[in-house]
Amino acid sequence: MTLSVKAYGAHAGDRPLEAIDISRRAPGADDVQIAIAYCGICHSDLHQARAEWAGTLFPCVPGHEIVGRVVDVGAQVQGFKAGDLVGVGCIVDSCRHCQDCGDGLENYCDSMVGTYNGATADAPGHTLGGYSEQIVVHQRYVLHVRHPEDQLAAVAPLLCAGITTWSPLKHWNAGPGSKVGIVGIGGLGHMGVKLAHALGAHVVAFTTSESKREAALALGADEVVVSRSADEMAGHAKSFDLIINTVAAPHDLDAYLVLLKRDGGMVLVGAPATPHPSPAVFNLIMKRRTLAGSMIGGIAETQEMLDFCAEHGVVADIELIRADEINDAYERMLKGDVKYRFVMDTATLSA
Amino acid sequence: MTLSVKAYGAHAGDRPLEAIDISRRAPGADDVQIAIAYCGICHSDLHQARAEWAGTLFPCVPGHEIVGRVVDVGAQVQGFKAGDLVGVGCIVDSCRHCQDCGDGLENYCDSMVGTYNGATADAPGHTLGGYSEQIVVHQRYVLHVRHPEDQLAAVAPLLCAGITTWSPLKHWNAGPGSKVGIVGIGGLGHMGVKLAHALGAHVVAFTTSESKREAALALGADEVVVSRSADEMAGHAKSFDLIINTVAAPHDLDAYLVLLKRDGGMVLVGAPATPHPSPAVFNLIMKRRTLAGSMIGGIAETQEMLDFCAEHGVVADIELIRADEINDAYERMLKGDVKYRFVMDTATLSA
Repeated sequence: MTLSVKAYGAHAGDRPLEAIDISRRAPGADDVQIAIAYCGICHSDLHQARAEWAGTLFPCVPGHEIVGRVVDVGAQVQGFKAGDLVGVGCIVDSCRHCQDCGDGLENYCDSMVGTYNGATADAPGHTLGGYSEQIVVHQRYVLHVRHPEDQLAAVAPLLCAGITTWSPLKHWNAGPGSKVGIVGIGGLGHMGVKLAHALGAHVVAFTTSESKREAALALGADEVVVSRSADEMAGHAKSFDLIINTVAAPHDLDAYLVLLKRDGGMVLVGAPATPHPSPAVFNLIMKRRTLAGSMIGGIAETQEMLDFCAEHGVVADIELIRADEINDAYERMLKGDVKYRFVMDTATLSA
Repeated sequence: MTLSVKAYGAHAGDRPLEAIDISRRAPGADDVQIAIAYCGICHSDLHQARAEWAGTLFPCVPGHEIVGRVVDVGAQVQGFKAGDLVGVGCIVDSCRHCQDCGDGLENYCDSMVGTYNGATADAPGHTLGGYSEQIVVHQRYVLHVRHPEDQLAAVAPLLCAGITTWSPLKHWNAGPGSKVGIVGIGGLGHMGVKLAHALGAHVVAFTTSESKREAALALGADEVVVSRSADEMAGHAKSFDLIINTVAAPHDLDAYLVLLKRDGGMVLVGAPATPHPSPAVFNLIMKRRTLAGSMIGGIAETQEMLDFCAEHGVVADIELIRADEINDAYERMLKGDVKYRFVMDTATLSA
């Protein structure tokens, strides 16, 4: 007994996404059945659907920035009931017994199951994401959304873009008294600016384009640096506690490492398809700087982030699209032509 | 009024070191005049003397692993008196008012003055190091040596090789319950193994050569991994809290990054002349790993390290040489033919 739901997905890497029918398992004792209202469009969706990453399984239904309303819950489910506003992010399962799971960092579990393209016993043998009408998820991986309902679409990107920047900001102690840089003002970066600002840090947005200066200030940046200006960059030498670098395209990491103060760190949250130029070890050694990576975030900290954002009125800046606009939206994403995140109105799947 | 002392140094990068006469300033109110007994031979000495690093000033008298006995002290000097056993490491001056100096991390002060090739008002306008009979140093940069006098020669390498590994071991919390890797078992690495062991960590020594296995165990390693063995390396995947990498030659950092557990870090203490292959960002992101650098250590932590070593009976494994053997010693260092540090008996300068 499965649920049949409408979705949007790709049958091959070289084919556009199209309307397809998929099935969801009937909710088990620990499951939450969710009517998806909106799903954010992440750059990862495009990589996966176009098979730019190895191992894409088809049909591929992307989407891991899911918000909606609970339809039904299994007998063992606690804390969720029909009608609740909820979210699902990048993770729908994990081993639940390793150190990482025990620490609430399921994102680092070796058996973490992604919301799409992950291993599952459900048909068709791999997980299918949020470009769909409904999803059924184990209660452990479901988040409460406490924003007003009219903000729901703009909450969706918090489930990936939000937590991916929140997690390193919190782990590396961004807050009052710290100077935080955000490199790249796109889907992730615009959330990084908003969250670092809301956390009380002094926020500097780095962008390659003078044209984005005003927009970055409007997001909450205290200062904006056009990274192509050597003078502007030099003015911030040895001054940052933390830099969150959201740019996945290969670029000169040293240009940012030298802006860190002693014991400062730069955290990469995007992985380039080809390597960055090798950073100069000297820049790390001279000031005991660190270069680190961070990948999304755990379930507990995702809930913490959502609650913080509800309390502080933080949501993403979005452009709402219909399901049948997804292929055009991907093309616009590739050109950086979105401020700052597309979100699919999944009601349009049944149109 | 200056002191004339015998030394060993180079007049040009392409000339061997030879006996030369140098002068030292007469001790000022805050100065400690030290009769040098022994000076360790660091790989940096060779780079500087041979002008392999830009900016070598000649004559070049290397040496920054200095131990000896106080001859005289200035009127303002407190805590040192004639006859005391003392040490001087890589630092003989700094600005004394920046954040780094205030934090006791003079090694990161932008105005840090190296024990050789640093800027000074003393003749000849740059500092001259420990391959000499005497040195005069501001009291702030002089360390107490509390080892028995018969260990004095073997204490010398603690002043650079020791503190360079101690500082990151302490900063990144090596101790009971932590698993620490030491990459490269040379001058720095052999001290890293000894210190990590003495701090109570589980120590794994990485070496390229099966022939060094027994020697590494004798230094205090709990395990030895021959890094050319893929099987041996794979057996330690995702298991290290901390890896101290002492290898300055360019090599594959990813081979070690994948051995770090979640939140583990690798600290580079050697800077290659040409870059390492660019590390894979994916390996940093997947487990929130960090790649960091660390440079020697501050004065306060150097004293802490010396006191710890005196208490725990830790010294370097050394081969004592005469001053006129220094050029041969450099050649042997280049071949890795020393277990594990040459130390010059400066009494031989007057032979």
